[in-house]
Amino acid sequence: MVKNKKGNQTLVFANRPRILSAAAVVGTKEGGGPLGSWFDTILEDDTFGEKTWEKSESKMLKTAMMEAMQKAGKNKEDIGAILSGDLLNQLMSSSFMARDLHIPFLGLYGACSTMTESLMLGAVLTDGKYSDNVIIGASSHYCTAERQFRMPLEHGNQRPPSAQWTATAAGAMVLSCGSEKEASLIADEEGNTRQAKEVQVTFGTIGKVIDAGIKDANQMGAAMAPAAVDTLLNHLQDTGRSLRDYDLILTGDLGYIGKDIAKDLLQDAGIPKKEIEDRYDDCGAMIFEKEQDVHGGGSGCGCSASVFAGYLYKRMQQGELNRVLIMSTGALLSTISPFQGESIPGIAHGISLEIGEVHQ
Amino acid sequence: MVKNKKGNQTLVFANRPRILSAAAVVGTKEGGGPLGSWFDTILEDDTFGEKTWEKSESKMLKTAMMEAMQKAGKNKEDIGAILSGDLLNQLMSSSFMARDLHIPFLGLYGACSTMTESLMLGAVLTDGKYSDNVIIGASSHYCTAERQFRMPLEHGNQRPPSAQWTATAAGAMVLSCGSEKEASLIADEEGNTRQAKEVQVTFGTIGKVIDAGIKDANQMGAAMAPAAVDTLLNHLQDTGRSLRDYDLILTGDLGYIGKDIAKDLLQDAGIPKKEIEDRYDDCGAMIFEKEQDVHGGGSGCGCSASVFAGYLYKRMQQGELNRVLIMSTGALLSTISPFQGESIPGIAHGISLEIGEVHQ
Repeated sequence: MVKNKKGNQTLVFANRPRILSAAAVVGTKEGGGPLGSWFDTILEDDTFGEKTWEKSESKMLKTAMMEAMQKAGKNKEDIGAILSGDLLNQLMSSSFMARDLHIPFLGLYGACSTMTESLMLGAVLTDGKYSDNVIIGASSHYCTAERQFRMPLEHGNQRPPSAQWTATAAGAMVLSCGSEKEASLIADEEGNTRQAKEVQVTFGTIGKVIDAGIKDANQMGAAMAPAAVDTLLNHLQDTGRSLRDYDLILTGDLGYIGKDIAKDLLQDAGIPKKEIEDRYDDCGAMIFEKEQDVHGGGSGCGCSASVFAGYLYKRMQQGELNRVLIMSTGALLSTISPFQGESIPGIAHGISLEIGEVHQ
Repeated sequence: MVKNKKGNQTLVFANRPRILSAAAVVGTKEGGGPLGSWFDTILEDDTFGEKTWEKSESKMLKTAMMEAMQKAGKNKEDIGAILSGDLLNQLMSSSFMARDLHIPFLGLYGACSTMTESLMLGAVLTDGKYSDNVIIGASSHYCTAERQFRMPLEHGNQRPPSAQWTATAAGAMVLSCGSEKEASLIADEEGNTRQAKEVQVTFGTIGKVIDAGIKDANQMGAAMAPAAVDTLLNHLQDTGRSLRDYDLILTGDLGYIGKDIAKDLLQDAGIPKKEIEDRYDDCGAMIFEKEQDVHGGGSGCGCSASVFAGYLYKRMQQGELNRVLIMSTGALLSTISPFQGESIPGIAHGISLEIGEVHQ
């Protein structure tokens, strides 16, 4: 693969910046879901002691950032930049988090694709030696998203079967390309510790905005699936890889309906059904049980952020997964664009994570 | 200066990516202001032929992007990524622009600091050889901003004297670090052409979020001035430069009040008054005449975007300015954060532009 090849959407991170640490903070419903045991902090109460939902979400993101920094053994002086975003208008969660942490801040908006957008730009900053360490992240909260995009909870409206449940969750990671390396240890259930595998960022595929013409804001998975498939196919073409080169491919929050559409589109593109079934899944279809009354599955920036930072990162550290492609997916509609007759554009950014030699 | 020095906020662009082209599209009021003759396109009608203000703004941004690409002689296949943002919820202008252009897209939100945020990350992508060319930009529109942040225009509310006027404007630039170079010619009023000076990006200082505790949303300049001064002082410290090393230092949209506050704060920091008076100005204080009934001056992402892409870039190309520091300034409040008792956090990112040897 030629770096900088014309028309190529994939960036090569030749220095393989590593994810020094990751932290996931989730709400009670997410903590009670099938991935609950993988998350670092589960709230007992989704207000998190704050008077407004927006402040609760911001505090969750800040907590994830601080836990990640603590695990990485980094002070804020060591961090060159925070790159983060959320679903709230004017990035309220991220902006106020960054005010408190007092670290140089770059705000990003990619709707629910924000986690891999921040990973992409964080990898560029560290791989390119512009910063030794950066911290990246994203968050969402069911109660802030419902108020902003749909109805305040107090309204008690009924959700259609295809609607997805915005995850109350935040994820953060410290990326580093410095030379020093602290030993990272993991423990099994019997207390035996061993050195964790090192998770490195190797490729990043920047997504295009794809609009399949869907206008129903309760069909987000269907609106985003074509963007996810477009990014995946471009990633494979740019890198010369096939699905078989990955142990797992995870989209962000297509949910049950969008996941099925993505599988169909991949088959239409000529990828054998078995290859897809063996290694493709979606965070929105993983974070909740169907019995948790979430209808179409999970969604929100925090859905993929917490699944990557909690579940996926730890499984890779334990050596259970060696090469993974993660693609957070975003629906770039605005709160007023549907009223102006617009359909829902989607986007997805892909990041390849690989276990590599531990830098010494 | 040491690259990657701990606590350093300034990135060094050693390969000096150049600004291949720039384009500014502005509304009628901005076109009738003191900088009118510098802008590439002045709308005859701020609807720009669209049925909603949001679509008008998106079309302005798209037009600026396309004009910049055309001037640079680049097709969309040549562009590795669009980095852009605007003030609208969910970046409606940028998202729909990127859908139409079908180029890999990274959405940014830094309120009115977005132009230098996009320049910063665009410079990282090109300087680091991740993309040969990227296109960056930002936009705002008086009518979309009034509706979203204040009142719909139809309401006819009175603006307090300290309120600023959101510029109806978009700016875009093509950044490049490739090896090939097309001759860029400029013509004087008598039709004599000569080679334009090459404008290169040399340093970028990522801003921290600074909150001076101001709660009045009609005092944006006062809320943002401390962030601008903080970024400027950090830039000077990181680079070992003084104000005298620059021909011009331009903040984004502090307006008349904020500009005076910034000057006072710089003097408090020990910088001689004459040094400041000789070379410091603010785009929000430049884009309109006071007689245009704009009260506190101009504001909005498009204010600094159009002044940089129109006025400043051309003056540098003509050799009238050799070294300039630009700092777009953003107020990171949300539409609901003031109702939750929050003050207004500010941010500013600084970019150093310098005339350099023309790459051959």
